[in-house]
Amino acid sequence: MKKINSLLALGATLTLGACTTTPQKPNIVFFLVDDYGWADSSVAYGEEVYKTNLRHDTPFQKLLSEQGAIMTNAYACPVSTPTRASLMTGMNASHMWVTNFTSPVRDLPSDGKYFVEPNAREVENPKFDRPLWNYNGISPVDGVENTCYATPLAQLLKDNGYFTICVGKGHWATPGTPGASPYNFGFVVNVSGNIAGRPGSYLSEDNYGNTAEKWTSHAVQNMTEYYGSGIHLTEALTREALKTLDYPISHNEPFYLYMSHHAVHTPIQGDDRFLQKYLERGMDEGQAKYASLVEGVDKSLGDIMHYLEQKGVAQNTIIIFMGDNGGNSITKQKGGEAHTQNKPLREGKGSCYEGGIRVPLLIKWPNQIQANTRLNTPVVCEDIFPTILSMAGIRSYKTVQAIDGEDLTKLLIDGSKYVSEQKFSTQKEATKFVIPQSISGLDPKRAIISNYPHRWKPSWNEDIDYMSSIRKGDWKLVYRMLSGTLELYNISEDIEEKNDVASQHEDIVRELALFLSEKFKEWKTPMPRLHSTLEEIPLPACIIRTK
Amino acid sequence: MKKINSLLALGATLTLGACTTTPQKPNIVFFLVDDYGWADSSVAYGEEVYKTNLRHDTPFQKLLSEQGAIMTNAYACPVSTPTRASLMTGMNASHMWVTNFTSPVRDLPSDGKYFVEPNAREVENPKFDRPLWNYNGISPVDGVENTCYATPLAQLLKDNGYFTICVGKGHWATPGTPGASPYNFGFVVNVSGNIAGRPGSYLSEDNYGNTAEKWTSHAVQNMTEYYGSGIHLTEALTREALKTLDYPISHNEPFYLYMSHHAVHTPIQGDDRFLQKYLERGMDEGQAKYASLVEGVDKSLGDIMHYLEQKGVAQNTIIIFMGDNGGNSITKQKGGEAHTQNKPLREGKGSCYEGGIRVPLLIKWPNQIQANTRLNTPVVCEDIFPTILSMAGIRSYKTVQAIDGEDLTKLLIDGSKYVSEQKFSTQKEATKFVIPQSISGLDPKRAIISNYPHRWKPSWNEDIDYMSSIRKGDWKLVYRMLSGTLELYNISEDIEEKNDVASQHEDIVRELALFLSEKFKEWKTPMPRLHSTLEEIPLPACIIRTK
Repeated sequence: MKKINSLLALGATLTLGACTTTPQKPNIVFFLVDDYGWADSSVAYGEEVYKTNLRHDTPFQKLLSEQGAIMTNAYACPVSTPTRASLMTGMNASHMWVTNFTSPVRDLPSDGKYFVEPNAREVENPKFDRPLWNYNGISPVDGVENTCYATPLAQLLKDNGYFTICVGKGHWATPGTPGASPYNFGFVVNVSGNIAGRPGSYLSEDNYGNTAEKWTSHAVQNMTEYYGSGIHLTEALTREALKTLDYPISHNEPFYLYMSHHAVHTPIQGDDRFLQKYLERGMDEGQAKYASLVEGVDKSLGDIMHYLEQKGVAQNTIIIFMGDNGGNSITKQKGGEAHTQNKPLREGKGSCYEGGIRVPLLIKWPNQIQANTRLNTPVVCEDIFPTILSMAGIRSYKTVQAIDGEDLTKLLIDGSKYVSEQKFSTQKEATKFVIPQSISGLDPKRAIISNYPHRWKPSWNEDIDYMSSIRKGDWKLVYRMLSGTLELYNISEDIEEKNDVASQHEDIVRELALFLSEKFKEWKTPMPRLHSTLEEIPLPACIIRTK
Repeated sequence: MKKINSLLALGATLTLGACTTTPQKPNIVFFLVDDYGWADSSVAYGEEVYKTNLRHDTPFQKLLSEQGAIMTNAYACPVSTPTRASLMTGMNASHMWVTNFTSPVRDLPSDGKYFVEPNAREVENPKFDRPLWNYNGISPVDGVENTCYATPLAQLLKDNGYFTICVGKGHWATPGTPGASPYNFGFVVNVSGNIAGRPGSYLSEDNYGNTAEKWTSHAVQNMTEYYGSGIHLTEALTREALKTLDYPISHNEPFYLYMSHHAVHTPIQGDDRFLQKYLERGMDEGQAKYASLVEGVDKSLGDIMHYLEQKGVAQNTIIIFMGDNGGNSITKQKGGEAHTQNKPLREGKGSCYEGGIRVPLLIKWPNQIQANTRLNTPVVCEDIFPTILSMAGIRSYKTVQAIDGEDLTKLLIDGSKYVSEQKFSTQKEATKFVIPQSISGLDPKRAIISNYPHRWKPSWNEDIDYMSSIRKGDWKLVYRMLSGTLELYNISEDIEEKNDVASQHEDIVRELALFLSEKFKEWKTPMPRLHSTLEEIPLPACIIRTK
């Protein structure tokens, strides 16, 4: 009888002509939202519920946060490509020399000469020459000029049996290089991922940018099915994603879905499913359109969660929800008042102030992460690479690059268990709680390094352009390259970065400045160059010494 | 010892976490070339080697033909979409009501008002109103207006465990309909297949049509990796195809590759790898460019064959090489003299004369089809659907449509064996040999029905526009709708269709006209309508009666 039962059990795992001989690996959905602010959702990542958290209805992020952990101190890079490259390589942007977004033209840096597109201006930079960064992005192939060559995450997953899927925005590299195609990074299926950093249009009426009048290289590819259908791009990409999951699920093969939404990047075009509601709440048109984009993305998350439940695989599927950089704080398209959208955080996309780099991060990992937990240890986008591989049970792998990120699985499993055993009476208390390294495996004072040695736009934005920062524990040093000054903030006490306390804590300034400088030296990070000599500007350590 | 051996044998079939429990299904490569003429290759499909066969070097088609069967009497539809739809549904174009190519705008027939594109002219047709055909193409979903709803071949293959891949041209439907996306037809992976019927450009210098100046809806999608690389589209699509094969081969899953080249359709832009050679042979520029496109496609076939060998799967892979309609005989881009390119066949693409519908077809099926055989039984594109399913061992399947095609596997297996046992002293003899139905399972006098109740271009082409035809055995009836006349040709004696013998064989004319009319009635095939009454023009049977 025992024998029969075990045969039956074996039979139950049989799928179309194949049986699994190893324990089922978990499926992984990595859900990335473009330019999504830390305070854009109703999930309160901070010590309190801010006014900004009340703007948008995001029930499915809320649900996800209740099923897993809220990572309250998660960081990404100030702009898109560096974060996306970091996710793919496990490296810090300054180590890859990919510190800015890639342009739609090979060998054309997106700084200095602003990128060549219809109506784009060519603007000379009167202050610095651009750093000698890898302006062609990352490459899975060696020898491509001005790229960082690395072994891609998707390739390692694919090589270990994962059915890897890319849907939506790519933006890892310039055209004409191998990094332009998700297939070269190890994706089995790609729906519309390529060199574009934003969508030509979100609207089916515009064929998502595919019309003779409106065409630019941002026109969204692979979407002809939806032209003129009234279906918003966010919904169209979601439907495509669900289609691609059919094969691995029906074949009982583990999948990795890189669901990379174009929303909520500019152009801020409303999602009609949700727009009216926000107008009725008194928002201006820009705000309401933005809010509808946000809720559209949330709906997409919900649809994917629902689909996984329906297919019976939700219990074996990890979901990671993340933003790729801070919310845009300067575009007029979002309505409202500029520089306020990410409050309480200072500034937004492009900046090394918290508004540019602190991002939403939620992780659901059934049976491993305790539900409804807050994990406050600082984490950063390059951690995702080793973490996902560890989650997938892939322990021995070789990469051509040295990985900068840390495996977060001990933090997620043991840390969330430890936290769940605590009693907190307020959100503030839960958000201040420090998990000891002995439990989480991670130093709560580990360094988080950010860097944007570029001017973002053809116009100047003084709290955005040419900055670096390092955070260790409560302290954060900000290096403003244009003025050659260093600022110090106690992030724990002053999340708004209002009170520069550098003059009161010269020892901390020195320690952080030296650490940051050493890292940049170790990585040979390209920095802006002086017009006069073409020499790189001084590192923070030199600024202290010359004081 | 025996036990250990069998365990070892079991182990040998283990792949990444999966073992096959059923016999390995054959892989299938369906290699489709656009607008590829019957005499465009060095494979001589006819009774002799014609001058036209000597124009282009196609060593890999030659090699393939030696490894399998040359189908000397293969037919497709006069234009692209009907053939492609027929391959996907197993239906005759006249049964689907998809008798013309789909336009790049939903609900806009490509006839009557010529399709709306920059520089396209809107031309009124002074003779007929367009037939009420399914101008939105085919659909895998019911209820889409002006489409033929059908169960797609790729879906059935996928449902039966195949890893299905679409690379290159789709062109099954208009934008905004489900048929626009290969994913909806059951493809697991799609590289660039969509609504486009031709490439914006073959050249990487033009980004394959993706530039602000040159953009049209034909711009080839999903190819940013190759922009500016100097790589011709044919080569780029080939490389993409090989990439997609990696997953199923390494997972030991059977695959179906629908390798659908844009070449050798207009625009006739040379493939620099081969161009110079043909210029040196004295071809004019158009001829040489066309020849280089032809050889580029042949190289692609060779590269795929080589890859399959390398990967050790060639012995379990069926390759079907086919053209989707006759070669273009009117474009000036191909150089030479118009109306001569498909000689000895009369006319070309769009026409129901042999030049428009007789196409190259080669089938390699290791261990099943005898190598180096010629199979002369007439076959037609709708046969591919049941044949591929039969090859894949898929016997019980349900389709919403009634299949018109015949399963060719008995012809291929038993027929080729029978033929290989014959002794032929000349190519002519081998090409005239008739395999009895008792051996092949197919009536050598089965009816082949073609229909093009449209005007192809805004200008008139009298041997192309508004024609139908039926072939049974040696005899072929041609219905010229504009003049309301019937022509009869003995194809076996007069492959050039020079001698209309209708007046000598009224009985045969009658028989064929009745048969064709009955089929059109059964299928309710839409025919052109008279301006005056909006009634459909008479069927061939009526023309005889009124004589």
